[in-house]
Amino acid sequence: MERDLKKIISEMTLEEKAGMCSGEDFWRLKKVERLGIPEVMVSDGPHGLRKQPGEADHLGIGESIVAVCFPAACATASSFDTELMNEMGKTLGEECQAENLSVLLGPAVNIKRSPLCGRNFEYLSEDPYLAGKMAASYIRGVQSWDVGTSMKHYAANNQEYNRMSCSSNLSERTFREIYLPAFETAVKEAQPKTIMCSYNKINGEYASENKHLLTEILRDEWGFEGYVMTDWGAVADRVTGIVAGLDLEMPGSHGVNDAKIIAAVKDGSLDEALLDKAVERILKVLFSYADNRHPEAVFDRDADHEKAVKIETECAVLLENNGILPLKEGRKVVYIGEYAEKPRYQGGGSSHINSSKVTSALESAKEKGRPVSYVKGFPFDKDEENAGELAAAVQAAKDAEVAVIFAGLPDLIESEGYDRKDMKLPACQNKLIEEVIKVQPNTVVVLHNGSPVEVPWADKTAAILEMYLGGQGVGEATDKLLYGEVNPSGRLAETFPLRLEDNPSYLNFPGDGVNVDYAEGIYVGYRYYDARKMPVRWAFGHGLSYTEYEYSNLNMPAESLDDKGCVKVTVDVKNTGSMVGKEVVQLYVSDKNGTAGRPVKELKGFAKVELQPGETKTVEFALTARDLSFYHEGLGDWYAPSGTYEVLIGHASDEIALRGELSFKTEKQLPLYVSGATTIGELMAHPVTAPIIGGLMQNMQGAMGAMQSDPTENVEDTLGTGAEMMKAMMHGMPLKSLASFAGAEMAAQIELMIQGMNQALGNK
Amino acid sequence: MERDLKKIISEMTLEEKAGMCSGEDFWRLKKVERLGIPEVMVSDGPHGLRKQPGEADHLGIGESIVAVCFPAACATASSFDTELMNEMGKTLGEECQAENLSVLLGPAVNIKRSPLCGRNFEYLSEDPYLAGKMAASYIRGVQSWDVGTSMKHYAANNQEYNRMSCSSNLSERTFREIYLPAFETAVKEAQPKTIMCSYNKINGEYASENKHLLTEILRDEWGFEGYVMTDWGAVADRVTGIVAGLDLEMPGSHGVNDAKIIAAVKDGSLDEALLDKAVERILKVLFSYADNRHPEAVFDRDADHEKAVKIETECAVLLENNGILPLKEGRKVVYIGEYAEKPRYQGGGSSHINSSKVTSALESAKEKGRPVSYVKGFPFDKDEENAGELAAAVQAAKDAEVAVIFAGLPDLIESEGYDRKDMKLPACQNKLIEEVIKVQPNTVVVLHNGSPVEVPWADKTAAILEMYLGGQGVGEATDKLLYGEVNPSGRLAETFPLRLEDNPSYLNFPGDGVNVDYAEGIYVGYRYYDARKMPVRWAFGHGLSYTEYEYSNLNMPAESLDDKGCVKVTVDVKNTGSMVGKEVVQLYVSDKNGTAGRPVKELKGFAKVELQPGETKTVEFALTARDLSFYHEGLGDWYAPSGTYEVLIGHASDEIALRGELSFKTEKQLPLYVSGATTIGELMAHPVTAPIIGGLMQNMQGAMGAMQSDPTENVEDTLGTGAEMMKAMMHGMPLKSLASFAGAEMAAQIELMIQGMNQALGNK
Repeated sequence: MERDLKKIISEMTLEEKAGMCSGEDFWRLKKVERLGIPEVMVSDGPHGLRKQPGEADHLGIGESIVAVCFPAACATASSFDTELMNEMGKTLGEECQAENLSVLLGPAVNIKRSPLCGRNFEYLSEDPYLAGKMAASYIRGVQSWDVGTSMKHYAANNQEYNRMSCSSNLSERTFREIYLPAFETAVKEAQPKTIMCSYNKINGEYASENKHLLTEILRDEWGFEGYVMTDWGAVADRVTGIVAGLDLEMPGSHGVNDAKIIAAVKDGSLDEALLDKAVERILKVLFSYADNRHPEAVFDRDADHEKAVKIETECAVLLENNGILPLKEGRKVVYIGEYAEKPRYQGGGSSHINSSKVTSALESAKEKGRPVSYVKGFPFDKDEENAGELAAAVQAAKDAEVAVIFAGLPDLIESEGYDRKDMKLPACQNKLIEEVIKVQPNTVVVLHNGSPVEVPWADKTAAILEMYLGGQGVGEATDKLLYGEVNPSGRLAETFPLRLEDNPSYLNFPGDGVNVDYAEGIYVGYRYYDARKMPVRWAFGHGLSYTEYEYSNLNMPAESLDDKGCVKVTVDVKNTGSMVGKEVVQLYVSDKNGTAGRPVKELKGFAKVELQPGETKTVEFALTARDLSFYHEGLGDWYAPSGTYEVLIGHASDEIALRGELSFKTEKQLPLYVSGATTIGELMAHPVTAPIIGGLMQNMQGAMGAMQSDPTENVEDTLGTGAEMMKAMMHGMPLKSLASFAGAEMAAQIELMIQGMNQALGNK
Repeated sequence: MERDLKKIISEMTLEEKAGMCSGEDFWRLKKVERLGIPEVMVSDGPHGLRKQPGEADHLGIGESIVAVCFPAACATASSFDTELMNEMGKTLGEECQAENLSVLLGPAVNIKRSPLCGRNFEYLSEDPYLAGKMAASYIRGVQSWDVGTSMKHYAANNQEYNRMSCSSNLSERTFREIYLPAFETAVKEAQPKTIMCSYNKINGEYASENKHLLTEILRDEWGFEGYVMTDWGAVADRVTGIVAGLDLEMPGSHGVNDAKIIAAVKDGSLDEALLDKAVERILKVLFSYADNRHPEAVFDRDADHEKAVKIETECAVLLENNGILPLKEGRKVVYIGEYAEKPRYQGGGSSHINSSKVTSALESAKEKGRPVSYVKGFPFDKDEENAGELAAAVQAAKDAEVAVIFAGLPDLIESEGYDRKDMKLPACQNKLIEEVIKVQPNTVVVLHNGSPVEVPWADKTAAILEMYLGGQGVGEATDKLLYGEVNPSGRLAETFPLRLEDNPSYLNFPGDGVNVDYAEGIYVGYRYYDARKMPVRWAFGHGLSYTEYEYSNLNMPAESLDDKGCVKVTVDVKNTGSMVGKEVVQLYVSDKNGTAGRPVKELKGFAKVELQPGETKTVEFALTARDLSFYHEGLGDWYAPSGTYEVLIGHASDEIALRGELSFKTEKQLPLYVSGATTIGELMAHPVTAPIIGGLMQNMQGAMGAMQSDPTENVEDTLGTGAEMMKAMMHGMPLKSLASFAGAEMAAQIELMIQGMNQALGNK
C-alpha cells in the first residue's frame, strides 16, 4: 500500500507531529488513531529479541519474553560469512514479525578500538571493511521480513565509560577511514530502516545534534533514507537535534522535549518543514512495517535454537592445535571448569536474552555417550580459588588422556555500561590451567569471552578453541567442533595482543571522563601492530582448520585501474587435506608509493568457500579506486595517488600466500594554494608551479644559485654536511623566507610571485 | 653604565627604529652612530664559536674562525653535571668577549621527541627537567662574562623535515609539560638575554607571530626580560610579529620587512609604542654587552682544548661492561674502525666548528706508549664494505687480547637541515662488529653518534662506551676512560629503544610535511616506555661506573607539602668500590592517587657527587608543589591532587634503589560548571554539589531510586549484570538524560537544578 504521507502530515496538529518524534514509552512509538497511524513497538537486539511484554518500566529492565539467544557479534563476525549473517538476520526478522516488533535494535557496528570496551562482545570487528560487510548482510536478512533494523551506535562510541557525555576526539581522516565506513557500507548496500545515534560527543558536539554526522554525511553523501533515533536518553538540545537530522527521541522525555519543539516552531526558531521531514521519515518506516505484516511468520524457538547451534559452529576460531583436535572417539577425556556445565554465552545489558534453552558441552557429550568425566575446578561466576577443586582437577587431568578446560570471563566482567579493567582471565582459571598443563600435555583450552584475553600459558597447551559468546547453542557447537563433526572455520575479526599494554589505545583509553583522544588515529588493530612490527598473540584473520589449503594462480588485471573502473582479481584455493572444510580467503591492499601515514595493508575483500578434500575453487574479488584510497582532508575526498598497489591474498593478515601488483591512475588533483608558507619543494612537485619556480630560481642572484646547483667544496667544508643540508633547506624553504636568503631583488617580489602562481593554478 | 634607553629611542627616527629590529647582515645588528648605538655581532654556537670574519655571505656558510669545538649537547647533557655546564658556559663567554661577540646562539633545548631528528645532537634531552637545569647552568656561565645567550628554538621544533613551515600540533598540556619547561626553567633561573623563536608553526600559527608563546607565556608568566630574535629567516608576517612580541628579525630581509613596519606605524595599524618596546629590549641587551666589555678576556685555544677533553670525560656513558674495562696496562689491544684515527666529534650545520685541533684515540694511545695496533676496518665517511679491510680486522682481533671497535655515524647522517631515515649504524660497521665478536670475546665498542642507534650485537660485546659527539678532545677523553685514568660517570639523557619502531613518535614522525601531530602527547621518552612496560636497550639515566654505589637513609619529611611550601629529601650514597667515582643520584616523583593520564614517574631532581672509595655523602633535594603537578587545561594552571606521592631515588630510571611516600594537600579547587552534560558522578565527587544531587536523588520517583540503592534480584536477572551496569550508568548519566530516565517531575526541573547548582558553586 502506498501511503500519502504528506497528506497525513498536513492533517496532523503541531502537537501530534512533535509527539511523533518521541516515544510513547520505553518501547513504543505514539499512535494517532484518527489518522490511522498505529502504535508500533521496537525491541532490543541484536542477537535475539529482548521484547518486554505488557507495560514498560521506566528503565526497560523488567522481564522479557523467552527468546532465542544467537551468538553475539564477536562470534558471528568471526564467521567471515556474509551468507550466514544474512540467514541469521532472516531468522530474527521472522521472529520480529511473529512478535509484532517493527524494528530490531541492531546491528552494532562500532569499531573495537580497545579490547577493554565493555560492549565489544556486541560489536563486530576492529576492521571497518569486515564490520560493514557483515552488518549489511544482517540488515538485508532482517529487513527481508519487512522489519526494520537500527544500526548503532552512530558514531565513535567505542567505550562504555562516561559514554553518555564523553567526547570522542578524532581527526576527520580517522573518522572517515576507521569509525564511519562500517556504517557507510551498510547504508549504501543495505539501507537500514533506522539508525541509532550514540550518546557521546564527537569533537565536542553530541552525536544527537551533529548535522555533519546525521545529515551531511549520512543522508547527503551516503543516501540514507530511513529515520535516525537516539540511543535511549541521548537527546541533548532537542531542537538542535531536529535541525541536525535527528528524527526520533527514545524513550521520550515526558513531554519536556516535545514542548520545546512546539515552542520553537511557534516562535519561528525552528522551521516547521524540518519537523515535517522528521515525521515523514518516521511514518515511512512505520508504515513499511505496519502495511507489510506477515501472518505466516512463526517464532519457532526449537528450530531457531538449532540454527543458533549451526551458526556458532561456523563462528568458533581454532587458535592453536598441535594435532590433538579433533578428539579421537573413545579417548578418555576430562572436562574441567564450570563453563563445561554452565557455559557463558552472552554479555550483560540491553542485549541480554531470556533464553529458551541453553545446552552445555558436558550435556552434549553425555547425550552422545562420549567417555567424558567432569571436574568443576573453578566457578563460572567469580574469581575464587578452591584448593580442593584445583587438586581434583589436576588429578583428573593426570588420570585422563586429554584434559579440556572450559575457561572464560564471568558475567560481571563483560557488560554494557562499563569497561573491563584489564585483559586477564580470572586468576583462579590461569592458575588451574598452569597446574593442569604441568601434568597433562594433551590439554585443550576452550574460551568463552566477548573480547581478547591474555593467555600467558598459550604456548604450553595442545590446542585452544575460541568460542566467544556463542549463544545458547554454544555447548552443542563446542562438542561438534572438538570431536570433528564440524571443521572449525572461524577467523579472528580482531587481533589478540600479547598484553593489554600493547594495544594502540592503551595510553588513551578511556580518557579522563570528559574527553577521550583517539591519538592512535587510523592505526587501530592490525593496522597498528603491522606498522610497528609488533609481535601479537594471534593476528587479525587468524584461524586454524582440521584440513589445509593451498593458494595458486593469482590473476591480476594487466590494465590500470582508474577512478571510475573496477577490476577483478581471482585466485585458486585448494583443500589439500583430507576433511571437508571452509576457507576464508582474505584480500589486503597495500600502497607502494611511499605515501606518508598509510597502514602496511588493509582488508578489502574476503570470501568463505567450502571445499571437499582435493577440491579447488576460484575465488573472485572486485576492486575499485575506493579500495586503494585514503581520506584526504585537504581534498575533502577519498584519494589514492597514481602508482602501484600491492594486492595480498592469504589465509590471515600474518599469513599472506600470494602477492600481485596493480597499477592505478587518478584524475584527481590535490589542491595547491600558494602562500608564503608554501615550500619550494611543494612548488617543484606540482606540474603547474614547477616550471614557474624553476625559472625563478635560475634567475635568482647570489647564493640561491649555489643551493640549486652543486655546492662548492667550500660549503661542504664549513658546515660539515653543507651540500646535503643546503638541498634539504632549499626543498623545505617557504617562499616567505626567500626575503632573507635570496637577495634584495627576490625579497621585493615574493608577493607578486605568489599571486602569479595562484593565478596559474586557477585559484581565486 | 646606566643608559637612558627611552631617551635614545625618542631621538630615533621611525626608520631607525624599524631598522634596529632587523639585522644589518647575517651576523650584525645595525648601528646608529649619531646616537652612540654601536654595531654588535652575534655568532652561531652553542658548543663553540662559528664566527665568520669579514663580510658575511648571503647564507652564512663561508669560512669561520679557528675555534674550539666542545662536546655537543647530546654529550654534555649526559654529564648530568650542572657545574660542568656552567664551567663550559664561562669558557665560551670569555671566548666571545675575546672575539667581540655580543650573543652566542645557544643553548638549544628542544626535546628529543624522536631519535631521528637531525639536530638531536645539539639538543639536551628527552626530559624537560634535565634539559632546563642544564641549559640554565650553561646560560649563567656564558652570561657571567656579560655576553648574551640565545636559548633556542622556541618552541616545539623537534624535527628538521619542513621545519620552516610545518605545524607542530599538540595539546596545551603536552606543550606545558614536555616542550616548554626547559625554556621555562632556564628563563626563571638564568634569564637568557635573548631567545630565538623557531621556524615552525604551533597548532597552525608561526612561532614568530605567536603572542601566546612570545608574550603571554614567555614574558607575562615567566618574566623574561630580554629580546626575542627569529631563527634565520623565520619571520612570517613582520607586523604581526612585532605585536606578538618578536623583537629582532635575523638576518634581515633587505629592508622589505622594515618597510612594512614603517608603513604599519604610519597607517595606524601598528601602535608605535610596541615598536619602541621592541627597540628598547634590543638596546638593553646590546648595551649590556657594549658597556661591559672585558679587555682581560683571552681566547686561549690550547687551554680551552684541555677543557674540552676534561668535559668530555665527564660526559661519556659506559653502557655495558663485563669487567673488561678499564683496560689493563700492557694488554695487547687492536683499535678497529677509521674513527679511531678520525673521530666523529661534531654534527653538521650551523653549529659546525672550524676546530683548532682534533686528537684521535689512536694518537692518544700512541703518545702514551700503549701497545695498540690499528686496522681501518671501515671508512669514517660512508657505508662501504671492504672485504680486505674486514678480513684484516677479524684477523687482528683474533691476534689481539682485546679489540676496541670505534663505530659511529658518518657526518652525512646527522646534520641540521634533515632528519635521519633510520636508527641504524652503517651496515658495513654492523657486519664488521658481528664478525669480530665471533673471534674475539673481549670486544669493546666505542660509539660516536649524536642520537641513539640500534645495536643488535649489544649482548655479545664485552663493553660499550658511548662518546656521543664528544668535541675536538674526544680522542684523549676516550683514551682516559678506556684505560681508567678517569672513571666514567655519564648517564643517558635519553632512552635507547631496542628498535626505531618502538619510539612513541614512530607513526607520527615527521608528519606529512604540512602538519606533524604530537599524538603521543606527554608520553615522550621514558614516560612512554615506562607506561607501556616496554623493554628498551638502555633506559633513561643509565650509565655504568668502574666502582659501585650504595644508597641508604632516604629521609622524607613527615609533614604534608602544600601549595606554597618546599620539603627537603635527603639520601646517603656510598662508594662501595675501590675507585674514586662520580655518581648521579636521580630523584623521580610518582602520583599514587590514580590520577588519569600521568606518567609512571618523572625526573624532579638529580645531583652528581664525587666519592672516594668508601666515602659516603648525603645528597639533598628540594621538592615543591610544582614537582608533583601536571598542567590542568581546565584550570589553566599546574595542579596536583591532594594525596600521596612516591619519591623514588636511584641510579637510573630503571634502577630505583629507595622509595618513600610524601603527602600533599592543595587548596586549588578544580572548576565545575554544571550543564546538561555534567554527570551524576561528577556532581557526587564535588563537595558543593554532592549534597544537592544526593538529596535530589533521594526524592526521585521510580526507578532512579532503585539505581541508587541495591538493585533488586529482578534487575540482576534480566540484564545479566544489572546491578553493576545500573551503578555505572548512574555514575555516568548526564543531567540532561534524567529527562528520559527519572520520571516526569524530574524531567521538568532539570534546568532549574542546573541553575541552582551553578549558583551554589558561585558560577555566573
